[in-house]
Amino acid sequence: MNMKNDTFGEIAGEIRAAGSILIIPHEHMDGDAAGSAAALCLGLRKLGKQAQVVLEDRPPENLAFLTKGLCVPVSKVKEAPSLAICVDCSDLHRFPKREKLFCGAGKTICLDHHKAEQGIADLNHIDDTAAASAELVYFLLRELDVAFDEAMALRIYAGLATDTGNFLYSNTTAQTHEIAAAMMRTGMDSNEVNVMIYESESFAKMRLHAAVLAKAECFAGGMGIMGIVSQEDLASTGARMEDTEGIVAALRSIRGVEIAVLLKEQQGKVIKASLRAKTFADVQKICAANHGGGHVRASGCTIYDTLPNARRLLLAACEKELQGYERNH
Amino acid sequence: MNMKNDTFGEIAGEIRAAGSILIIPHEHMDGDAAGSAAALCLGLRKLGKQAQVVLEDRPPENLAFLTKGLCVPVSKVKEAPSLAICVDCSDLHRFPKREKLFCGAGKTICLDHHKAEQGIADLNHIDDTAAASAELVYFLLRELDVAFDEAMALRIYAGLATDTGNFLYSNTTAQTHEIAAAMMRTGMDSNEVNVMIYESESFAKMRLHAAVLAKAECFAGGMGIMGIVSQEDLASTGARMEDTEGIVAALRSIRGVEIAVLLKEQQGKVIKASLRAKTFADVQKICAANHGGGHVRASGCTIYDTLPNARRLLLAACEKELQGYERNH
Repeated sequence: MNMKNDTFGEIAGEIRAAGSILIIPHEHMDGDAAGSAAALCLGLRKLGKQAQVVLEDRPPENLAFLTKGLCVPVSKVKEAPSLAICVDCSDLHRFPKREKLFCGAGKTICLDHHKAEQGIADLNHIDDTAAASAELVYFLLRELDVAFDEAMALRIYAGLATDTGNFLYSNTTAQTHEIAAAMMRTGMDSNEVNVMIYESESFAKMRLHAAVLAKAECFAGGMGIMGIVSQEDLASTGARMEDTEGIVAALRSIRGVEIAVLLKEQQGKVIKASLRAKTFADVQKICAANHGGGHVRASGCTIYDTLPNARRLLLAACEKELQGYERNH
Repeated sequence: MNMKNDTFGEIAGEIRAAGSILIIPHEHMDGDAAGSAAALCLGLRKLGKQAQVVLEDRPPENLAFLTKGLCVPVSKVKEAPSLAICVDCSDLHRFPKREKLFCGAGKTICLDHHKAEQGIADLNHIDDTAAASAELVYFLLRELDVAFDEAMALRIYAGLATDTGNFLYSNTTAQTHEIAAAMMRTGMDSNEVNVMIYESESFAKMRLHAAVLAKAECFAGGMGIMGIVSQEDLASTGARMEDTEGIVAALRSIRGVEIAVLLKEQQGKVIKASLRAKTFADVQKICAANHGGGHVRASGCTIYDTLPNARRLLLAACEKELQGYERNH
């Protein structure tokens, strides 16, 4: 990272000075975006601030309990806030319909754990060694001397758990578990979070996963696997594109697989690709070559071409990356 | 629990006094039995003890890395040890071919986190509030002043992770996360454990799951869901019946589902059924009526009839159990 981070102390200072605060998670919220934004909102309200989470789209159904009662649609926000904080995103394109609102705030803060070359806010704290933005919200709230209650803890926990695949992924650190432990000491029920988030999948989502996994193809002698979600798959199963969440992890879990790829056909020759590596391959490099990015073991890119062409392109790139590695490297 | 536990201090005293120590995990080892036994063995060796894990069966393929280099088959043990420690079991029936060896030791110790009415050893520490026996081994090794290295930490972590469904199940506590954090501070790679244990599913298993989930049927207005594994499904996907593990949990995870049923067609008009309830239904009752059993929320039975008849029978029984409950009870 090239940029210098502002400290939690400096950020806390701006928060203490602010009156109204708007919190902006990225669009298409995941558990970390929703959990981090909601925990921060609850914490700031506890400090007596007028805080709200501003959205431009609806939260996924299984995450709605995290942000319930804390949100306002961007269309309803009439005044520029004294402070705007974007959470789990450090790129204005990740909240296009709130960019103007964000940039028009008296002061802006950015908290994120995705790699970024430069800050988009007046104060930035971007730490890609954190497993989830929820870790950063945890440290910020501690800096602000907010006492964690069960509701806040549950939302921090939800952020940690979802962004680490329940503490499975390699981004999980001792710090992640330490924060999870601290959250559980509040008396929160992690099983409740898990039932709400994971045991409330739609029937359509299950059918989509089954359809995609059933026709997944192996390549590079079983070291690669690719799944494809076409618009037709969505239509035939009644699922939505956000229901693809979890498919690439399922593909990666196959024995011998090093790189898993999921292609998601958007409308009109736009293919979004999610790539995951298991232990050694660099999928960030593959995605960067296609104007995408992310982490070494988890990256994404968008290909403006047909599904067959996107498939060919990424198969070739992955095969090249895997070249020279034997199975069970 | 009726019994009084011996303290880790008392148990550590016996260990310090012992020369040769044999460690006995239960047969059909799971990740906690293997991880706890192996971590304890490594710790005792670090103390200069002559320690080995004695087995009567082979560890499952995906867990073999945990106990590698530490095990001896019971057939090769010729002398009674000065101390035997059984781990993750407090019932002699769980290690039938090593019972004699255990009982013939100079002293015996039992460490377990399963409920038990009475101890089977000279010293017992049985704590069913611990999420895994690995937690108890952790405290015992601390009591013995053993410094945790990566190899020990990785095995303790494996025990915690596998017995908590990766920190998902309701047995997970703040203590579980605290120990996980301490283990990760040694520099161990949790991703390695997870890849070894979980990310080694066969392609055939994934295809079987996809095939079964794709044709699962809902009933009782979406409060019930049933999946069917026919012999034909096994043949067409190349999977084995044991690859059905996890399907019923996937069915249960659907939103609104209270009862999930999986029918598994064996050879020749024998249908094994697995039933799971999410929050309130009693599937034990349904299974008991068909000469099966288990727990209230997780039971099974065998039906000696055709697949269509078994399907009809269980659909009717589940619909009856769900009768009178509204969706979102």
